[in-house]
Order: sequence, then C-alpha cells, then structure tokens
Amino acid sequence: MSDKKLRIVPLGGLGEVGKNMMAVEYGEDILVIDAGLMFPENDMLGIDYIIPDFQYLLNKPKNVCGIIITHGHEDHTGAIHHLMEQINAPIYATPLTRGLVELKLSRGGLLNQVSLNTVKAGEMVQIGPFKVEFFHVCHSIPDGVGLGIGTPEGLIIHSGDFKFDHTPVDSWPTDFAKLGEFSGRGVLALMADSTNADKRGWTPSERVIEPALDQVFRTAPGRIIVATFASVISRMQQVANIAINHGRRMAFVGTSMTENARISRKLGYLEIPDNLLVSVEQAMKMKPNEVVLMCTGSQGEPSSILGRLSTGTNRQFDLVSGDTVVLSSHPIPGNEESVHRTINRLFRRGANVIYDAIAPVHVSGHASQEEEKLLINLVKPKHFIPIHGELRHLHQHADLARELGIPTERVATIENGHTIEFLHGNMNLGERIPGGYVFVDGAGVGDIGPSVVREREALARDGIVLVNLAIDRNTSKLREEPEIITRGFIIIRDAEVLMAGMSKLISETVRRGNGDLKEDLRNTLMSYIYNETKRRPMIFITTSRE
Amino acid sequence: MSDKKLRIVPLGGLGEVGKNMMAVEYGEDILVIDAGLMFPENDMLGIDYIIPDFQYLLNKPKNVCGIIITHGHEDHTGAIHHLMEQINAPIYATPLTRGLVELKLSRGGLLNQVSLNTVKAGEMVQIGPFKVEFFHVCHSIPDGVGLGIGTPEGLIIHSGDFKFDHTPVDSWPTDFAKLGEFSGRGVLALMADSTNADKRGWTPSERVIEPALDQVFRTAPGRIIVATFASVISRMQQVANIAINHGRRMAFVGTSMTENARISRKLGYLEIPDNLLVSVEQAMKMKPNEVVLMCTGSQGEPSSILGRLSTGTNRQFDLVSGDTVVLSSHPIPGNEESVHRTINRLFRRGANVIYDAIAPVHVSGHASQEEEKLLINLVKPKHFIPIHGELRHLHQHADLARELGIPTERVATIENGHTIEFLHGNMNLGERIPGGYVFVDGAGVGDIGPSVVREREALARDGIVLVNLAIDRNTSKLREEPEIITRGFIIIRDAEVLMAGMSKLISETVRRGNGDLKEDLRNTLMSYIYNETKRRPMIFITTSRE
Repeated sequence: MSDKKLRIVPLGGLGEVGKNMMAVEYGEDILVIDAGLMFPENDMLGIDYIIPDFQYLLNKPKNVCGIIITHGHEDHTGAIHHLMEQINAPIYATPLTRGLVELKLSRGGLLNQVSLNTVKAGEMVQIGPFKVEFFHVCHSIPDGVGLGIGTPEGLIIHSGDFKFDHTPVDSWPTDFAKLGEFSGRGVLALMADSTNADKRGWTPSERVIEPALDQVFRTAPGRIIVATFASVISRMQQVANIAINHGRRMAFVGTSMTENARISRKLGYLEIPDNLLVSVEQAMKMKPNEVVLMCTGSQGEPSSILGRLSTGTNRQFDLVSGDTVVLSSHPIPGNEESVHRTINRLFRRGANVIYDAIAPVHVSGHASQEEEKLLINLVKPKHFIPIHGELRHLHQHADLARELGIPTERVATIENGHTIEFLHGNMNLGERIPGGYVFVDGAGVGDIGPSVVREREALARDGIVLVNLAIDRNTSKLREEPEIITRGFIIIRDAEVLMAGMSKLISETVRRGNGDLKEDLRNTLMSYIYNETKRRPMIFITTSRE
Repeated sequence: MSDKKLRIVPLGGLGEVGKNMMAVEYGEDILVIDAGLMFPENDMLGIDYIIPDFQYLLNKPKNVCGIIITHGHEDHTGAIHHLMEQINAPIYATPLTRGLVELKLSRGGLLNQVSLNTVKAGEMVQIGPFKVEFFHVCHSIPDGVGLGIGTPEGLIIHSGDFKFDHTPVDSWPTDFAKLGEFSGRGVLALMADSTNADKRGWTPSERVIEPALDQVFRTAPGRIIVATFASVISRMQQVANIAINHGRRMAFVGTSMTENARISRKLGYLEIPDNLLVSVEQAMKMKPNEVVLMCTGSQGEPSSILGRLSTGTNRQFDLVSGDTVVLSSHPIPGNEESVHRTINRLFRRGANVIYDAIAPVHVSGHASQEEEKLLINLVKPKHFIPIHGELRHLHQHADLARELGIPTERVATIENGHTIEFLHGNMNLGERIPGGYVFVDGAGVGDIGPSVVREREALARDGIVLVNLAIDRNTSKLREEPEIITRGFIIIRDAEVLMAGMSKLISETVRRGNGDLKEDLRNTLMSYIYNETKRRPMIFITTSRE
C-alpha cells in the first residue's frame, strides 16, 4: 500500500457562504473543484466582490492537474478568470457550464489561452491520478453535476450543489442509480452541500411554482415583468411555457439575461420557439396584456433593470399603473433590506408586486434535511464532510450525519484552510494552511485588506474634517483664516456656530504654540467637536509656514 | 352637525418599519399616539437612530392635548424624550409602559417636568375632545393596549401592536368582548397593525416555545445562555418557570435586561421567586449545569453581551465548551448577516447554538393574516386604514380588507405625511404634510440629512486621498515633495509604484501650471488613479505659496 496521502483542502465555501473552492490532492497532484466568488457583506464597504485566497495553489502551480466546475453559478465560477491568470491547467465542465465559463473567460481576455474540456454527466475522465465520474444533480441551473472521485485511497463523492427534485423542469432528475452504485463500491468519504441544513423537510419541486405563475398570468391586467437571477434557465423555460398558454409574447431585458438565454437556447437547454420572442422595443409597442418581460434585479440591486424601474431611471421603458411585477427569487441573506425597499418602491410606482412571501413563485435549489439524509443513506459513506455553507449549516449537517449513525470521529466539521488527510482508510486533521478571502475592488485584487475596510468604516461613521493652515514663519500666527473642509460630518450651512467655534479654537491653539502643533490641534479639535456633537470625525491638519 | 373635521395624520410607521407615531385631530385638538424610533438601515452610515419628523406638531404645540403610548417597545417609545423636550402635554400609559417610559425620560433628565398618567386596560379617559377607551391586546411585551377613540365624528379603533394569543404567558388574552362591543356601537374606522400582513395563517401562541426550551434544559450539558430582547418580559417568565422545573438558578446579565426585569417584578408583571435569582458572579461559581443566564444580543449587536461573548471580549465571563446558547428571537430585517455571523462565531468558540431555524424558540408578537381578518370581522369598520408596516405590508393588509368586503374606496393605503379626513361619516384624502424622518447621530438631531449620508457613502466607497503642496511663490515650483495621505483607499506599503506615479504627476502638473491648479491637479490625479486602480477616491488638494 502506498504511503501517499489523500488530502482535502477547502479554500472557500466552508464556514462562509458563497465562493466555493476546494482542492483534492493525492501525493503531489492537485485537482481543483470550483472557483467561486462571494458578494461583499454590508459592512465590507466599497468592495466589489470577494474571492478565495488560493495562494496555496500558487505555491505549486505545476501540481494542478485539472479544474472542475460543477455548475455555472457565480459562487462556483466567479473567480475562474483570477485563477486562470495564474494557473495553467485544463478546465472540465458540462456543456452549459462550459458555455457560461467561456463567457467569463472571454470578458477577461483569457479564452484563447485556456484549455477547456467538455464532459457530460455519466462520463468518466482520468485527471492525473483521479478517475472522475460526473453524475447529474438537480439544482437551480441546468447541467449541474456531482463528482465521484476515484483515488488510490478510495472513492470520494462530492455532491455539487444539489436537490432531489423528482419533477424538475428539464425532466432530468438527480442520478440516484449512480449514487446507489457508488454505495455498492464503498465510499471513503462524502462531501455534501449544506446550504439548507437548517431547513426541515424536503425542498419543493421547481414545478410547484407553475400554478402560482399561471395565476399571475390569468389575472394580470397589463404587462407582466418577471425578475429573477439571469442563471435560472428553468424559470425562463417555465415563463415561456406559460406565456404560450396565455397568448403572451416574451422579451428578455438586459445583457446577462439575454446572453444566458442565447447560450442556453443554442446549447439546447432552453426550448423557446423563435416566434414567441420579441425585442424590448417590439414589446413596448404591443398591448400591455400581450407581453411578458424577464429581467434581473430580484435581489434589489440598484443598477439592475428592476432596481432602475423601481426608481424610475430605466432607459428603455418605465413602469406604468397596471403592471404586475413578480420577484421570482428569495432574498440572499444580507439583501433583505434592499429587496424590501425595491418592493415598496415598485408599489409606490403603481405596480402590483408578487413576491415569495405572498405566493410560491420561487423554490430553493438546495436540498433540505430529508434530502440530505437520503443522500447520506444512499451513499453510505465511511466518513462525512459537510461542505458549502456557513459554520452553523456545517454543524447542523454534521448533526444529521451523526443521527444517521456515522460515528462522531468520522464526521469532520471544518472551515476554510483546515485540511483533512486520508491514509490507509483513516481520516485525520491535517495542517492548517492560510485560508480566508481576498477583496477585489476595481482593478485591485488583494490590495485592500481588513485594515483599509476599517478605515472606510471610520470615514463613514462620522465623516472627515480637514483643516489647512497658513502660518507666518516669523510671528507664528495665522496668516489667514483657517480653511475648514468637511465631508459626511454635518450639514455645514446649519453649523455656523460650530464652525466659528472651531475657527476660534484653532487661532488660540496656534497662538499658544505648544509642542507638536498638529497633534495639539487634532486633540483640541477632537474634544471640542466631540463635546459639541458627540461625533468623532477623522481630523486631518495640514500646515505651511510662510 | 359640526363642520369640524376628524383627521388622521401619520407621522411615522406607515410605509416604513419602526418609529410608529400618529396624530388624531378633531378641530384644533391633537391626540398623539406613540413616539417611536427606528434603527438605521445598513446604508445609513454612522447614524445612531431615526425618529419621525414631527415638525407638524411643533408648529402648534399648544394644540396637543395628550400623548398615548400603547406599549413599551422602542419603536413606540424611543422618540418620547425628543418629543417631550418640545411639547408640554400629559402622557398616558399602562403601568408597565409607564415604568419603561419613565426610565427613558429620566435618562434624558426630563422625568420631573413631564406629567405622566397611569391608565389600565378597560378604563376610559377623556383627553380633550376624545373619549379614549384602553383595551388589552396581546403582544411580545405585557400590558399592551389598543384604543377605542370616541370622537364627535364617530368611533375610531387603533389596534396597537397585537396578536390573538389564546394562551399567552400572562394568561391575559386580547379583549375580544370589547372589540365586539365596539362593533355593536358602530366603528367609523379601524387602524390595524400590518407588520405580518404577508404571513399566512395564525401566529402561534407564545406557549409553543416552552417544549423547545424544555428540551434545551433537559439536554444541555453545561450552562444555558438565553439571548433575547430586553423587553420580552414573557420570555423571562418562561425561562424562570422552566429553570425551576429543572433545578437551575437564573441570572440576568447586562443593564437593560436587569433593569427591565427589576421594573417588571416590582410592578407585578414578572413572577420570579427571590431564591431563583443569583448574580452573575454567583452564577460563575456554580456548577455549569445548575445555571441559566439571560442576556441581550439576539440581533447580533457587536456591543451586546452575546456579541461580546461571540468575539471573546465579554468582561464578566467567557464562553466555554459545553455552553448552550439559545437565540430566542427572529432577526429583524437587515440584521440577518450580523445574526448569522454571531451564530457562526459562537459555534467556533465551542458553544452549541439553538436558533429559530432549528427549533421553535421564538414566535412573532404580531398578528398574521387570519388574525387580521378576525379583527376586521370582529370590528366591522366602515373604513379601514392599515398601519404599522412597510408599504408592501399595507398593500397586503388592504387586499385582505377588500377580500372581506370593505369597498375599495373605503380602504386607505397611505404613507407617512398623507393625511385622511372624516366629515359627516365620509373619508377623504387630506393635505400632504412634510413627512419623513430625522437622523439622530451623537448629540445632533436633524443636523445630518441625506446629503451628508451620501458623502459618507462616497468616503466609504473608495476612501480619500489628501495632497498637501508647498509651492514657491517666486518660481511656482514645488518647494518640497508633495505630502500624500490616504485613508480607506489602498494598502499603502504595497502601493509604492502608484504613490511614486502620483508624486511624479503632481510635480509635472505644478510645473505646467495650467489655469486653476487645484482643479487641474484633482482631475489629473483622478484619471490617473482611476486608470491604475479603477477606483475613485475623494481627492482633496491643499496648497500654500511661500
């Protein structure tokens, strides 16, 4: 028996939502699974997005033998162009996932220098020492896969993002038979999606939203505008089918929606007859009750089509009274406020708004507890590693596994950067590697750290006060009135008394001329401002002596 | 018949969550109902809290004949000291509500100059031209009331915050008989709590959480820490009862929890035997499985006891492995991220965490749709005005009223500042008054407007760059290297090339000496920085000529 170890190296998606990424190693060889991004939390001010810290891979880039993308969602694909700028290894993905990854790489100007391989669910591919079997899983985007990873140490199952929908829109359920077959062969470890590990029961089938959508189409007096993620291809299919039944034509609005629909149709994942589709311009000329529009913005993003409609700043068309807006999605945690604000604004502009609290117009793409239990009992793994979720989800999922009889010592609840090693069939905690995340802001990747974000917080909390002084080098007195500039501190036109007080204090402090003038001024102003306003703006003093 | 009008003037709580406040006017006389605050949304940077804009009342302060507080929650009481600084009118409240309002007034140094009147549910009080009947309603704090407001124009019902709990912890259900009696007399208008208007069914009784808490007490191996709002007196009672059953002693941690428990016990709203209570110090000396602690922080507030426990910065004690933490509350919209982050951190510190997704350890204090329907059918109002909720809730509640047969023209879905008038039994929209909200930040009330918050956003988005130049007045050249200060922009130690580039550019621009030097410098630096980083920090230039 070899003494090479099999290692699981979570780089993202364990202990934090989104930005899923993992390495599976055998000896020297590294297989990467997914490379996702995460959108910033509300207190990560000004950050565009976050990617996993994959420095670990950059230390041995030649060892990476392949990169598998399990499906086309941003939280699994969004860091791929950052990775491919630095790693030269082939990508493996199913046709739709490949199409979406290509879009991303071509925007980054990387398409021609990357080797892309199409695999289909049911196929097996040898990647370095790994025999990878791709099996179909249902999720909220078509063509998702899970992985059976054959290694000399044993078989590892990676669930991908999955649910057990028996009646998915594309009539292609999760490959239960393959899971059963894996089970028969013996599974060393199962790594399974934990996103909904605190949801009881069974996630409803995507089909359940059709009656709710049908009801909207039956009763809407004017235009219907369905907002969802650009990646929910199945929702496009459902809306198209219902539109045909109700004699409405359909238009996609916005680049991402239009592009994804185009790719999905081209690759055969979306069946929409040509004569159903109209352009937005055509749609605007039709009778309101003869058209349905699909757009993005269901998360309340201000710059999305729906966000702009809610504020009356959309370029191509405006909301009119009689419009019905359907938000066919659930707010991602952290987005609730902006989603609710958008809904309120849509109501204020005269639209009727249907959202998931008031009608079942959305279902989750992730397995709930009963499905998670079924997966574990189907696969009967020796070891269990919950993945894809915050720490609280991983703990819940681990509890479920223990309830099903997997001994505590064979369940590993780990976070990013904690590695797991298998040797001779036994699981152990391995070394800790530097984990964490990297901020992307504008063109900068990693040139902003938590300290810069804390400075932004401080700037935002009480604003800034800038004082510029010209001091006479002979008399050490002010040559002119101090220049005082503030931003984010106070409404200046109402703060005459405060500004006069600051001016007076500055003159006195300069006249006193104690020790370090700048430091003295900063302290004096800080306590004066705090006493008057109970605020602590950042204070900057610049001086010149003339 | 008089030609005086009855007017409803919503000052807060319609179209936005929280900060509930309303005026009911007959002729010249004004009755104020509630004066609440709202905590800032995630993008209201640095703001402490928000209060209603009650300038309308300040224009005729002598006309206010009374102020009723329906219950002791912050979103109904939190602006009372701001109001009482400027309005001299008696306050009416039930005993517990009065106790909590007194706390608030005494902190503001206003207690001695305010006239406070205790009323009990079931009593009637004449306030100016209004005959106000206080009736008991269940809510998540004891001693809440709704109001029957007799006016010469007819009877108006104000629901307060309510639910129809048949088995509340204090065994005091909502006064259905009084509602039926109002109905018999004829009700001109019902104003009812819309908070849960998009929740189907019936809100569960507070009692349902007892089995879940009991389960925690049966299985927790060590200390139990229950986190909830300091105002949920009934939860204190439930935890006390269960602690007695399981032989644990109880300690309150933190000022607000301790103070509220003290007042509630003194006034008879909380029955806890003296020998059940221990101090935190005593609790720390006891065996872990003999104690339960109650504290605040269930909303993930970083400075709360639970927030500090989650980061290991609590003063009196730390979490230890084996602790069980119960979050007995539901995240307020906008707080999800910080609640989830706190839960993850508690897990990371070795605690087991029970929260509402995984066990029914919390129920809402507000009526759901079936209760809202029951209230409308009990009261049978001629007109209906949904209150207390965002616009989307008001629309849902209005839809419910129409489903129950109230004609559309008798249902008023209005926002803050839209007034309603009744004359001779008919309802009409009245004038618009300046509505909205006032930011409170530090000592300042209203000295920060949306423009200052937008400046804070701009500061936080990409930080600031300060450039200070000393220019020779004779040669117009730089006398020394420009001083460049940044905050929140970039990690300076990794940005040598950028800083050198800026320095060079500044020298060149000064040498060129085109037109307005500051403007020229700002534009030149702005485009350089944007090209290099794709960021747009705020740029400030100060110069002196020597």
